[in-house]
Amino acid sequence: MTGKLYGLGLGPGDPELLTLKAHRILTSCPVVAYPAPDTGPSFARQIAAPYLTAAQLEVPIIVPMRVERFPAQDIYTKAAETLSHHLDAGSDVAVLCEGDPFFYGSFMYLFERLADRYPTEIVPGVSSMMAAAAGLGRPLAARNDVLTVLPGPLSDQELAARIEASGAVAIIKLGRHFARIRALIESLGLTAQAGYAERVSLAEQKLTPLADVAEDTAPYFSMILIYKGDERWHPALAKKLGSGAA
Amino acid sequence: MTGKLYGLGLGPGDPELLTLKAHRILTSCPVVAYPAPDTGPSFARQIAAPYLTAAQLEVPIIVPMRVERFPAQDIYTKAAETLSHHLDAGSDVAVLCEGDPFFYGSFMYLFERLADRYPTEIVPGVSSMMAAAAGLGRPLAARNDVLTVLPGPLSDQELAARIEASGAVAIIKLGRHFARIRALIESLGLTAQAGYAERVSLAEQKLTPLADVAEDTAPYFSMILIYKGDERWHPALAKKLGSGAA
Repeated sequence: MTGKLYGLGLGPGDPELLTLKAHRILTSCPVVAYPAPDTGPSFARQIAAPYLTAAQLEVPIIVPMRVERFPAQDIYTKAAETLSHHLDAGSDVAVLCEGDPFFYGSFMYLFERLADRYPTEIVPGVSSMMAAAAGLGRPLAARNDVLTVLPGPLSDQELAARIEASGAVAIIKLGRHFARIRALIESLGLTAQAGYAERVSLAEQKLTPLADVAEDTAPYFSMILIYKGDERWHPALAKKLGSGAA
Repeated sequence: MTGKLYGLGLGPGDPELLTLKAHRILTSCPVVAYPAPDTGPSFARQIAAPYLTAAQLEVPIIVPMRVERFPAQDIYTKAAETLSHHLDAGSDVAVLCEGDPFFYGSFMYLFERLADRYPTEIVPGVSSMMAAAAGLGRPLAARNDVLTVLPGPLSDQELAARIEASGAVAIIKLGRHFARIRALIESLGLTAQAGYAERVSLAEQKLTPLADVAEDTAPYFSMILIYKGDERWHPALAKKLGSGAA
Protein backbone atom coordinates (compact mmCIF):
# COMPACT_ATOMS: atom_id res chain seq x y z
CA MET A 1 0.00 0.00 0.00
CA THR A 2 1.41 3.35 -0.99
CA GLY A 3 0.77 6.48 1.05
CA LYS A 4 -1.68 9.21 0.12
CA LEU A 5 -0.69 12.65 -1.13
CA TYR A 6 -2.51 15.68 0.24
CA GLY A 7 -2.41 19.26 -0.99
CA LEU A 8 -3.46 21.17 2.10
CA GLY A 9 -4.81 24.70 1.82
CA LEU A 10 -3.75 26.48 5.02
CA GLY A 11 -5.54 29.79 4.50
CA PRO A 12 -4.10 33.30 4.41
CA GLY A 13 -1.85 33.23 7.48
CA ASP A 14 -3.74 33.04 10.78
CA PRO A 15 -3.31 29.43 11.97
CA GLU A 16 -6.92 29.54 13.16
CA LEU A 17 -8.04 29.89 9.53
CA LEU A 18 -7.07 26.30 8.75
CA THR A 19 -10.13 24.17 8.17
CA LEU A 20 -10.97 21.41 10.60
CA LYS A 21 -10.16 18.99 7.78
CA ALA A 22 -6.75 20.47 7.01
CA HIS A 23 -5.99 20.42 10.74
CA ARG A 24 -6.95 16.75 11.05
CA ILE A 25 -4.85 15.71 8.06
CA LEU A 26 -1.91 17.92 9.00
CA THR A 27 -1.70 16.41 12.46
CA SER A 28 -1.98 12.84 11.19
CA CYS A 29 0.55 12.83 8.34
CA PRO A 30 4.03 11.49 9.19
CA VAL A 31 5.62 13.53 6.38
CA VAL A 32 5.04 17.25 5.88
CA ALA A 33 6.47 19.08 2.85
CA TYR A 34 6.36 22.80 2.17
CA PRO A 35 7.86 25.42 -0.16
CA ALA A 36 10.64 27.47 1.39
CA PRO A 37 12.75 30.33 0.08
CA ASP A 38 16.51 29.89 -0.20
CA THR A 39 16.93 32.27 2.71
CA GLY A 40 14.50 32.94 5.53
CA PRO A 41 11.54 31.04 6.88
CA SER A 42 8.79 29.24 4.93
CA PHE A 43 5.49 31.09 5.18
CA ALA A 44 3.51 27.87 4.72
CA ARG A 45 5.43 26.24 7.56
CA GLN A 46 4.86 29.30 9.76
CA ILE A 47 1.11 28.96 9.33
CA ALA A 48 1.21 25.28 10.27
CA ALA A 49 3.84 25.61 13.01
CA PRO A 50 1.46 25.54 16.01
CA TYR A 51 0.27 22.10 14.97
CA LEU A 52 3.52 20.37 13.93
CA THR A 53 5.18 17.85 16.23
CA ALA A 54 8.74 16.57 16.51
CA ALA A 55 7.52 13.15 15.37
CA GLN A 56 6.79 14.46 11.88
CA LEU A 57 9.42 14.42 9.16
CA GLU A 58 9.68 17.82 7.50
CA VAL A 59 10.66 18.11 3.83
CA PRO A 60 11.36 21.69 2.76
CA ILE A 61 11.13 22.30 -0.99
CA ILE A 62 13.63 25.08 -1.62
CA VAL A 63 12.26 27.46 -4.23
CA PRO A 64 14.60 30.40 -4.91
CA MET A 65 12.66 33.66 -4.99
CA ARG A 66 12.57 35.14 -8.46
CA VAL A 67 10.89 38.23 -9.69
CA GLU A 68 7.90 36.58 -11.30
CA ARG A 69 7.99 33.46 -9.13
CA PHE A 70 7.97 31.01 -12.02
CA PRO A 71 10.53 28.61 -10.62
CA ALA A 72 12.47 26.18 -12.71
CA GLN A 73 10.50 23.00 -13.16
CA ASP A 74 13.40 20.73 -12.20
CA ILE A 75 12.90 21.81 -8.59
CA TYR A 76 9.50 20.15 -8.64
CA THR A 77 10.76 17.10 -10.48
CA LYS A 78 13.33 16.53 -7.75
CA ALA A 79 10.82 17.28 -4.98
CA ALA A 80 8.32 14.84 -6.51
CA GLU A 81 11.01 12.17 -6.53
CA THR A 82 11.76 12.78 -2.85
CA LEU A 83 8.09 12.62 -1.93
CA SER A 84 7.57 9.49 -4.02
CA HIS A 85 10.04 7.61 -1.81
CA HIS A 86 7.93 8.41 1.24
CA LEU A 87 4.71 7.53 -0.57
CA ASP A 88 6.20 4.25 -1.83
CA ALA A 89 7.15 3.43 1.75
CA GLY A 90 3.49 3.78 2.73
CA SER A 91 3.69 7.18 4.43
CA ASP A 92 0.99 9.78 3.84
CA VAL A 93 2.47 13.09 2.76
CA ALA A 94 0.91 16.52 3.39
CA VAL A 95 2.09 19.34 1.12
CA LEU A 96 1.43 22.66 2.83
CA CYS A 97 -0.01 25.41 0.63
CA GLU A 98 -0.51 29.06 1.54
CA GLY A 99 -4.13 30.09 0.89
CA ASP A 100 -5.83 27.67 -1.48
CA PRO A 101 -3.74 25.06 -3.35
CA PHE A 102 -5.25 25.66 -6.80
CA PHE A 103 -5.70 29.46 -6.68
CA TYR A 104 -2.41 30.59 -8.27
CA GLY A 105 -0.57 28.02 -6.15
CA SER A 106 2.54 25.99 -6.86
CA PHE A 107 1.02 22.70 -5.68
CA MET A 108 -0.09 22.05 -9.27
CA TYR A 109 3.53 21.35 -10.19
CA LEU A 110 3.70 18.46 -7.71
CA PHE A 111 0.15 17.37 -8.49
CA GLU A 112 0.90 16.91 -12.18
CA ARG A 113 3.95 14.81 -11.35
CA LEU A 114 2.43 12.57 -8.67
CA ALA A 115 -1.36 12.35 -8.92
CA ASP A 116 -1.36 9.64 -11.58
CA ARG A 117 0.80 7.41 -9.40
CA TYR A 118 -0.60 7.92 -5.88
CA PRO A 119 -4.04 8.52 -4.37
CA THR A 120 -4.24 12.29 -4.13
CA GLU A 121 -6.61 14.69 -2.40
CA ILE A 122 -6.68 18.46 -2.47
CA VAL A 123 -8.15 20.19 0.57
CA PRO A 124 -9.32 23.67 -0.43
CA GLY A 125 -8.41 26.58 1.80
CA VAL A 126 -9.47 30.13 2.57
CA SER A 127 -7.97 32.41 -0.06
CA SER A 128 -6.25 35.64 0.95
CA MET A 129 -8.62 37.32 -1.52
CA MET A 130 -11.63 36.40 0.59
CA ALA A 131 -9.76 37.30 3.79
CA ALA A 132 -8.83 40.71 2.34
CA ALA A 133 -12.46 41.54 1.54
CA ALA A 134 -13.49 40.40 5.02
CA GLY A 135 -10.82 42.58 6.61
CA LEU A 136 -11.59 45.63 4.50
CA GLY A 137 -15.28 45.20 5.23
CA ARG A 138 -16.44 45.58 1.65
CA PRO A 139 -17.91 42.85 -0.56
CA LEU A 140 -15.49 41.13 -2.91
CA ALA A 141 -18.34 40.80 -5.42
CA ALA A 142 -22.13 40.76 -5.24
CA ARG A 143 -25.31 40.27 -7.26
CA ASN A 144 -24.42 39.98 -10.96
CA ASP A 145 -20.99 41.63 -10.68
CA VAL A 146 -18.23 40.35 -12.90
CA LEU A 147 -15.21 39.68 -10.68
CA THR A 148 -11.82 39.77 -12.40
CA VAL A 149 -8.58 38.57 -10.80
CA LEU A 150 -5.57 40.25 -12.40
CA PRO A 151 -1.88 39.43 -11.86
CA GLY A 152 0.12 42.63 -11.41
CA PRO A 153 2.72 41.87 -14.13
CA LEU A 154 0.12 42.44 -16.87
CA SER A 155 0.56 45.57 -18.98
CA ASP A 156 -1.04 48.90 -18.13
CA GLN A 157 -3.19 48.68 -21.22
CA GLU A 158 -4.52 45.25 -20.38
CA LEU A 159 -5.04 46.06 -16.71
CA ALA A 160 -6.89 49.29 -17.53
CA ALA A 161 -9.25 47.66 -20.01
CA ARG A 162 -10.12 44.83 -17.64
CA ILE A 163 -10.50 47.07 -14.58
CA GLU A 164 -12.86 49.36 -16.48
CA ALA A 165 -14.95 46.41 -17.69
CA SER A 166 -15.49 44.77 -14.28
CA GLY A 167 -17.67 45.62 -11.30
CA ALA A 168 -15.16 44.03 -8.96
CA VAL A 169 -11.42 43.50 -9.32
CA ALA A 170 -8.65 41.83 -7.32
CA ILE A 171 -5.08 42.65 -8.34
CA ILE A 172 -2.56 40.15 -7.02
CA LYS A 173 1.23 39.72 -7.30
CA LEU A 174 1.81 43.45 -6.78
CA GLY A 175 5.44 43.59 -5.61
CA ARG A 176 7.49 45.94 -7.75
CA HIS A 177 4.43 46.71 -9.89
CA PHE A 178 2.64 48.46 -7.03
CA ALA A 179 3.46 52.12 -7.83
CA ARG A 180 2.63 51.63 -11.50
CA ILE A 181 -0.70 50.00 -10.69
CA ARG A 182 -1.63 52.60 -8.10
CA ALA A 183 -1.02 55.36 -10.66
CA LEU A 184 -3.10 53.45 -13.18
CA ILE A 185 -6.04 53.14 -10.75
CA GLU A 186 -5.75 56.86 -10.00
CA SER A 187 -5.84 57.67 -13.73
CA LEU A 188 -9.04 55.63 -13.99
CA GLY A 189 -10.64 57.65 -11.18
CA LEU A 190 -11.08 54.56 -9.01
CA THR A 191 -8.75 55.24 -6.07
CA ALA A 192 -11.65 55.99 -3.71
CA GLN A 193 -13.11 52.57 -4.45
CA ALA A 194 -9.86 50.67 -3.99
CA GLY A 195 -8.60 48.96 -0.84
CA TYR A 196 -5.17 47.60 -0.03
CA ALA A 197 -4.50 44.47 2.01
CA GLU A 198 -1.12 43.15 3.11
CA ARG A 199 -0.33 39.99 5.11
CA VAL A 200 -4.01 39.75 5.87
CA SER A 201 -5.11 37.87 9.01
CA LEU A 202 -1.62 38.06 10.56
CA ALA A 203 -0.81 40.30 13.54
CA GLU A 204 1.16 42.62 11.24
CA GLN A 205 -1.60 42.90 8.65
CA LYS A 206 -2.24 46.19 6.88
CA LEU A 207 -5.79 46.97 5.73
CA THR A 208 -6.39 50.43 4.33
CA PRO A 209 -7.96 52.44 1.55
CA LEU A 210 -5.47 52.53 -1.32
CA ALA A 211 -5.28 56.32 -1.02
CA ASP A 212 -3.66 55.97 2.41
CA VAL A 213 -0.74 53.74 1.39
CA ALA A 214 2.50 55.71 1.73
CA GLU A 215 4.94 53.17 0.31
CA ASP A 216 5.82 52.73 -3.36
CA THR A 217 6.37 49.00 -3.21
CA ALA A 218 4.36 46.14 -1.77
CA PRO A 219 5.37 42.70 -0.55
CA TYR A 220 4.40 39.57 -2.45
CA PHE A 221 1.62 38.81 0.01
CA SER A 222 -0.49 41.85 -0.76
CA MET A 223 -3.34 42.78 -3.06
CA ILE A 224 -5.58 45.60 -4.20
CA LEU A 225 -9.35 45.12 -4.27
CA ILE A 226 -11.60 47.43 -6.28
CA TYR A 227 -15.32 47.27 -5.67
CA LYS A 228 -17.53 49.63 -7.62
CA GLY A 229 -20.70 49.08 -5.59
CA ASP A 230 -21.69 51.92 -3.29
CA GLU A 231 -21.11 49.98 -0.09
CA ARG A 232 -18.98 51.79 2.45
CA TRP A 233 -15.80 50.64 4.11
CA HIS A 234 -16.02 48.75 7.37
CA PRO A 235 -17.05 51.43 9.88
CA ALA A 236 -14.25 50.44 12.27
CA LEU A 237 -11.73 50.84 9.47
CA ALA A 238 -13.09 54.18 8.30
CA LYS A 239 -13.12 55.42 11.88
CA LYS A 240 -9.61 54.22 12.66
CA LEU A 241 -8.25 55.82 9.54
CA GLY A 242 -10.26 59.01 9.84
CA SER A 243 -10.30 58.89 6.07
CA GLY A 244 -12.91 60.07 3.62
CA ALA A 245 -13.13 56.63 2.13
CA ALA A 246 -16.66 56.13 3.41
CA MET B 1 -21.88 46.33 26.60
CA THR B 2 -23.51 45.30 23.37
CA GLY B 3 -22.85 41.93 21.76
CA LYS B 4 -20.61 41.36 18.76
CA LEU B 5 -21.87 40.51 15.28
CA TYR B 6 -20.07 37.80 13.32
CA GLY B 7 -20.45 36.91 9.66
CA LEU B 8 -19.22 33.31 9.62
CA GLY B 9 -18.08 31.72 6.38
CA LEU B 10 -18.94 28.01 6.68
CA GLY B 11 -17.35 26.76 3.47
CA PRO B 12 -18.94 24.87 0.59
CA GLY B 13 -20.92 22.23 2.48
CA ASP B 14 -18.76 19.63 4.25
CA PRO B 15 -18.93 20.56 7.96
CA GLU B 16 -15.24 19.67 8.20
CA LEU B 17 -14.44 22.58 5.87
CA LEU B 18 -15.31 25.12 8.56
CA THR B 19 -12.22 26.90 9.78
CA LEU B 20 -11.04 26.38 13.33
CA LYS B 21 -11.98 30.03 13.93
CA ALA B 22 -15.50 29.71 12.56
CA HIS B 23 -15.94 26.57 14.65
CA ARG B 24 -14.80 28.34 17.83
CA ILE B 25 -17.09 31.31 17.28
CA LEU B 26 -20.03 29.19 16.16
CA THR B 27 -19.88 27.09 19.31
CA SER B 28 -19.54 30.10 21.60
CA CYS B 29 -22.31 32.39 20.30
CA PRO B 30 -25.63 32.22 22.16
CA VAL B 31 -27.56 33.42 19.09
CA VAL B 32 -27.20 31.86 15.64
CA ALA B 33 -28.96 33.36 12.61
CA TYR B 34 -29.08 31.93 9.10
CA PRO B 35 -30.87 32.41 5.80
CA ALA B 36 -33.62 29.87 5.14
CA PRO B 37 -35.96 29.33 2.20
CA ASP B 38 -39.71 29.63 2.73
CA THR B 39 -39.98 25.87 2.31
CA GLY B 40 -37.35 23.25 3.04
CA PRO B 41 -34.20 23.30 5.12
CA SER B 42 -31.54 26.03 5.38
CA PHE B 43 -28.32 24.97 3.67
CA ALA B 44 -26.25 27.19 5.96
CA ARG B 45 -27.85 25.58 9.02
CA GLN B 46 -27.24 22.11 7.56
CA ILE B 47 -23.53 22.83 7.30
CA ALA B 48 -23.38 24.02 10.92
CA ALA B 49 -25.78 21.41 12.32
CA PRO B 50 -23.16 19.03 13.79
CA TYR B 51 -21.91 21.83 16.02
CA LEU B 52 -25.15 23.47 17.19
CA THR B 53 -26.49 22.83 20.68
CA ALA B 54 -29.94 23.10 22.21
CA ALA B 55 -28.68 25.98 24.37
CA GLN B 56 -28.31 28.23 21.33
CA LEU B 57 -31.15 30.43 20.14
CA GLU B 58 -31.71 29.98 16.42
CA VAL B 59 -33.00 32.87 14.30
CA PRO B 60 -33.94 31.80 10.76
CA ILE B 61 -34.07 34.64 8.24
CA ILE B 62 -36.73 33.55 5.77
CA VAL B 63 -35.69 34.53 2.25
CA PRO B 64 -38.23 33.40 -0.37
CA MET B 65 -36.48 31.77 -3.33
CA ARG B 66 -36.76 33.93 -6.43
CA VAL B 67 -35.34 33.39 -9.84
CA GLU B 68 -32.41 35.77 -9.56
CA ARG B 69 -32.14 35.61 -5.77
CA PHE B 70 -32.22 39.35 -5.26
CA PRO B 71 -34.57 39.35 -2.30
CA ALA B 72 -36.53 42.35 -1.19
CA GLN B 73 -34.46 44.52 1.08
CA ASP B 74 -37.17 44.79 3.75
CA ILE B 75 -36.43 41.20 4.73
CA TYR B 76 -32.98 42.30 5.82
CA THR B 77 -34.25 45.44 7.50
CA LYS B 78 -36.54 43.33 9.66
CA ALA B 79 -33.85 40.71 10.30
CA ALA B 80 -31.39 43.44 11.31
CA GLU B 81 -33.95 44.77 13.78
CA THR B 82 -34.41 41.32 15.29
CA LEU B 83 -30.67 40.78 15.62
CA SER B 84 -30.18 44.25 17.09
CA HIS B 85 -32.38 43.31 20.05
CA HIS B 86 -30.06 40.40 20.84
CA LEU B 87 -26.97 42.55 20.34
CA ASP B 88 -28.40 45.30 22.55
CA ALA B 89 -29.00 42.69 25.23
CA GLY B 90 -25.30 41.85 25.14
CA SER B 91 -25.50 38.58 23.22
CA ASP B 92 -22.98 37.79 20.50
CA VAL B 93 -24.71 36.85 17.24
CA ALA B 94 -23.27 34.54 14.58
CA VAL B 95 -24.76 34.88 11.11
CA LEU B 96 -24.10 31.68 9.17
CA CYS B 97 -22.99 32.12 5.55
CA GLU B 98 -22.57 29.41 2.93
CA GLY B 99 -19.08 29.56 1.41
CA ASP B 100 -17.47 32.94 2.05
CA PRO B 101 -19.59 35.82 3.42
CA PHE B 102 -18.40 38.48 0.94
CA PHE B 103 -18.11 36.35 -2.22
CA TYR B 104 -21.57 36.93 -3.74
CA GLY B 105 -23.11 36.44 -0.30
CA SER B 106 -26.17 37.98 1.29
CA PHE B 107 -24.41 38.83 4.56
CA MET B 108 -23.57 42.25 3.09
CA TYR B 109 -27.22 43.24 3.50
CA LEU B 110 -27.05 42.70 7.26
CA PHE B 111 -23.54 44.11 7.46
CA GLU B 112 -24.56 47.43 5.94
CA ARG B 113 -27.44 47.71 8.40
CA LEU B 114 -25.60 46.75 11.60
CA ALA B 115 -21.83 47.25 11.31
CA ASP B 116 -21.93 50.95 12.18
CA ARG B 117 -23.82 50.21 15.41
CA TYR B 118 -22.14 47.06 16.72
CA PRO B 119 -18.62 45.60 16.74
CA THR B 120 -18.56 43.38 13.68
CA GLU B 121 -16.17 40.74 12.40
CA ILE B 122 -16.28 38.77 9.19
CA VAL B 123 -14.64 35.35 9.23
CA PRO B 124 -13.72 34.37 5.67
CA GLY B 125 -14.58 30.88 4.50
CA VAL B 126 -13.62 28.38 1.83
CA SER B 127 -15.44 29.30 -1.36
CA SER B 128 -17.20 26.62 -3.40
CA MET B 129 -15.13 27.90 -6.34
CA MET B 130 -11.92 26.74 -4.69
CA ALA B 131 -13.55 23.51 -3.58
CA ALA B 132 -14.76 22.84 -7.13
CA ALA B 133 -11.25 23.24 -8.56
CA ALA B 134 -9.88 20.96 -5.83
CA GLY B 135 -12.51 18.33 -6.59
CA LEU B 136 -12.07 18.51 -10.35
CA GLY B 137 -8.31 18.29 -9.90
CA ARG B 138 -7.46 21.15 -12.23
CA PRO B 139 -6.05 24.55 -11.25
CA LEU B 140 -8.59 27.33 -10.86
CA ALA B 141 -5.94 29.75 -12.15
CA ALA B 142 -2.16 29.81 -12.32
CA ARG B 143 0.87 31.91 -13.23
CA ASN B 144 -0.31 35.13 -14.92
CA ASP B 145 -3.77 33.87 -15.88
CA VAL B 146 -6.65 36.29 -15.76
CA LEU B 147 -9.45 34.64 -13.76
CA THR B 148 -12.97 35.88 -14.46
CA VAL B 149 -16.00 35.03 -12.34
CA LEU B 150 -19.21 35.34 -14.34
CA PRO B 151 -22.80 35.17 -13.07
CA GLY B 152 -24.91 32.97 -15.35
CA PRO B 153 -27.68 35.55 -15.93
CA LEU B 154 -25.35 37.67 -18.11
CA SER B 155 -26.11 37.74 -21.85
CA ASP B 156 -24.59 35.30 -24.32
CA GLN B 157 -22.70 38.13 -25.98
CA GLU B 158 -21.13 39.31 -22.74
CA LEU B 159 -20.36 35.81 -21.51
CA ALA B 160 -18.72 34.84 -24.81
CA ALA B 161 -16.50 37.92 -24.96
CA ARG B 162 -15.32 37.49 -21.39
CA ILE B 163 -14.78 33.72 -21.66
CA GLU B 164 -12.69 34.20 -24.79
CA ALA B 165 -10.58 36.90 -23.13
CA SER B 166 -9.69 34.94 -19.98
CA GLY B 167 -7.32 32.07 -19.28
CA ALA B 168 -9.56 30.84 -16.48
CA VAL B 169 -13.28 31.26 -15.92
CA ALA B 170 -15.80 30.36 -13.22
CA ILE B 171 -19.47 30.61 -14.16
CA ILE B 172 -21.76 30.74 -11.14
CA LYS B 173 -25.54 31.05 -10.60
CA LEU B 174 -26.24 28.57 -13.41
CA GLY B 175 -29.77 27.34 -12.62
CA ARG B 176 -32.09 27.78 -15.59
CA HIS B 177 -29.24 29.31 -17.61
CA PHE B 178 -27.32 26.04 -17.71
CA ALA B 179 -28.37 24.70 -21.13
CA ARG B 180 -27.81 28.08 -22.78
CA ILE B 181 -24.36 28.44 -21.25
CA ARG B 182 -23.34 24.90 -22.11
CA ALA B 183 -24.29 25.53 -25.76
CA LEU B 184 -22.32 28.77 -25.68
CA ILE B 185 -19.19 27.02 -24.37
CA GLU B 186 -19.59 24.37 -27.07
CA SER B 187 -19.85 27.08 -29.74
CA LEU B 188 -16.59 28.55 -28.44
CA GLY B 189 -14.85 25.17 -28.77
CA LEU B 190 -14.09 25.03 -25.04
CA THR B 191 -16.20 22.09 -23.85
CA ALA B 192 -13.17 19.83 -23.46
CA GLN B 193 -11.61 22.35 -21.09
CA ALA B 194 -14.73 22.85 -18.98
CA GLY B 195 -15.64 21.06 -15.76
CA TYR B 196 -18.94 20.95 -13.89
CA ALA B 197 -19.27 20.90 -10.10
CA GLU B 198 -22.49 20.54 -8.13
CA ARG B 199 -22.96 20.49 -4.34
CA VAL B 200 -19.21 20.16 -4.04
CA SER B 201 -17.77 18.59 -0.87
CA LEU B 202 -21.12 17.03 0.09
CA ALA B 203 -21.78 13.29 -0.14
CA GLU B 204 -24.05 13.87 -3.14
CA GLN B 205 -21.53 16.03 -5.01
CA LYS B 206 -21.21 15.78 -8.76
CA LEU B 207 -17.80 16.48 -10.34
CA THR B 208 -17.49 15.82 -14.03
CA PRO B 209 -16.23 17.16 -17.35
CA LEU B 210 -18.96 19.41 -18.75
CA ALA B 211 -19.28 17.09 -21.76
CA ASP B 212 -20.61 14.34 -19.49
CA VAL B 213 -23.50 16.27 -17.92
CA ALA B 214 -26.77 14.77 -19.13
CA GLU B 215 -29.22 17.21 -17.55
CA ASP B 216 -30.36 20.50 -19.07
CA THR B 217 -30.74 22.37 -15.80
CA ALA B 218 -28.49 22.80 -12.80
CA PRO B 219 -29.23 23.58 -9.16
CA TYR B 220 -28.28 26.91 -7.62
CA PHE B 221 -25.27 25.37 -5.89
CA SER B 222 -23.38 24.47 -9.05
CA MET B 223 -20.78 26.03 -11.31
CA ILE B 224 -18.77 25.56 -14.48
CA LEU B 225 -15.00 26.05 -14.42
CA ILE B 226 -13.03 26.59 -17.62
CA TYR B 227 -9.27 26.34 -17.48
CA LYS B 228 -7.33 26.80 -20.68
CA GLY B 229 -3.99 25.52 -19.42
CA ASP B 230 -2.97 22.10 -20.65
CA GLU B 231 -3.19 20.41 -17.26
CA ARG B 232 -5.18 17.21 -17.25
CA TRP B 233 -8.14 16.30 -15.12
CA HIS B 234 -7.57 14.59 -11.79
CA PRO B 235 -6.46 11.07 -12.78
CA ALA B 236 -9.00 9.48 -10.44
CA LEU B 237 -11.75 11.50 -12.08
CA ALA B 238 -10.67 10.71 -15.63
CA LYS B 239 -10.40 7.03 -14.72
CA LYS B 240 -13.77 6.89 -13.00
CA LEU B 241 -15.45 8.59 -15.90
CA GLY B 242 -13.60 6.70 -18.59
CA SER B 243 -13.93 9.91 -20.53
CA GLY B 244 -11.64 11.46 -23.07
CA ALA B 245 -11.34 14.59 -20.99
CA ALA B 246 -7.66 13.99 -20.27
